[in-house]
Amino acid sequence: MGQYDFIANAFSFGFAVMAAATLFLWFSRSQVAPAYKMAVTISGLVTAIAGYHYLQIMLSWDAAFSVTNGTIETTGYAFNQAYRYVDWLLTVPLLLVELILVMRLSRSETVSKSVTLGGAAALMIILGYPGEVAEGGATRFLFWVLSMIPFIYIVYQLVVGLKGSISKQPENVRGLINGAATLVVVSWLFYPIVFLFPLIGLTGGAAITAVEVGYTVADIVAKAVFGILILMIAMRKSEAEGKASA
Amino acid sequence: MGQYDFIANAFSFGFAVMAAATLFLWFSRSQVAPAYKMAVTISGLVTAIAGYHYLQIMLSWDAAFSVTNGTIETTGYAFNQAYRYVDWLLTVPLLLVELILVMRLSRSETVSKSVTLGGAAALMIILGYPGEVAEGGATRFLFWVLSMIPFIYIVYQLVVGLKGSISKQPENVRGLINGAATLVVVSWLFYPIVFLFPLIGLTGGAAITAVEVGYTVADIVAKAVFGILILMIAMRKSEAEGKASA
Repeated sequence: MGQYDFIANAFSFGFAVMAAATLFLWFSRSQVAPAYKMAVTISGLVTAIAGYHYLQIMLSWDAAFSVTNGTIETTGYAFNQAYRYVDWLLTVPLLLVELILVMRLSRSETVSKSVTLGGAAALMIILGYPGEVAEGGATRFLFWVLSMIPFIYIVYQLVVGLKGSISKQPENVRGLINGAATLVVVSWLFYPIVFLFPLIGLTGGAAITAVEVGYTVADIVAKAVFGILILMIAMRKSEAEGKASA
Repeated sequence: MGQYDFIANAFSFGFAVMAAATLFLWFSRSQVAPAYKMAVTISGLVTAIAGYHYLQIMLSWDAAFSVTNGTIETTGYAFNQAYRYVDWLLTVPLLLVELILVMRLSRSETVSKSVTLGGAAALMIILGYPGEVAEGGATRFLFWVLSMIPFIYIVYQLVVGLKGSISKQPENVRGLINGAATLVVVSWLFYPIVFLFPLIGLTGGAAITAVEVGYTVADIVAKAVFGILILMIAMRKSEAEGKASA
């Protein structure tokens, strides 16, 4: 009962954070230079999409269980974990696009990096899904391995591939951009680890609580906190460029 | 029955106040200087988040009881008091950030004070939660004590630590900023006192009514009234700075 409520509260918290972050990011659009508006718009879009899916997840959680006199029973409706995949398929490529846009690279670099990194991110999610819904552990593991290939490519690009572009960023935001790239890598690491939980025998109420609450925290860090970092970078760069041109 | 309705009405009142304050604050954003827009945006965000949670609390209250021929019975769904904690975890740190932003300190001071005060506020809420959901009085008291440590730190910072920064504020808003800091301290005092009610044997219908209505009033003062104070400070400072540069 305590775990059931705790998860429900975590979902509601996730929804509230995502909705609040969306409004905050979109209101703050007016405070960045035109060159950075798209990055901030997309940051808010990511949290908006995540907020919608947390609402769906909340409703699905509610429909999957009924509470009678303090006892919880499953209703027969399965809790739809797949809403997370639908969400990630949209938001994960956009998160990388945010980072690329706020760096304000040349147009051709922006397009090529968005396509390769965004494409790899989408591929990573698509390859994870068959494993998530598979019955057998072997299938789950196979798709984990396949999904890790684009994951490692993205991590490599963020840690090594972007180094050159980051070193060309203005000094006052270099630390923040490095921080944003690190935040992506660290918060994303949570997902492949959790994916393996059922394989190592972590099931039952405590494991479900750890997974759902953990995913929620990881989503908040990877989307809302990341979005606010992107906004801060955009504001500082706008300010610095405004001064330079004055 | 009267108490049941009274509480339901208080929740509805809480929702209406929060929603109205949100719209008012966001409409007024256009009337403050760019430097203060973020403080006003966050003020409206806090009341928006609180409004969402009052809606959730209303629905949870409705689901927890059924009324048949004038008799109230519990439905077996527990009234989810934890929505308050989910709300506070988000809004309480943001309230302190509002105050810090409207003071317009240096960037490094803004960041360091937001992190320490906001972090302390989040820690305070997190430490209160296990006590709230605990069965035994001893556990409740233990977490009350733990939660009071960051609380006292925040009060100390507001009363003593910010004194220096407040004295540097323009004269026409110094009183208002002192008022806002005092309002935080006074309205927040209500929460730890109410938290102890069950320990001193205050339970039953009248106590629940006192707690729920009391929390609602405290929330309205600490979020909506406080937010409007922040807006007033932002408007006065915008006006004064506009004049100075003109």
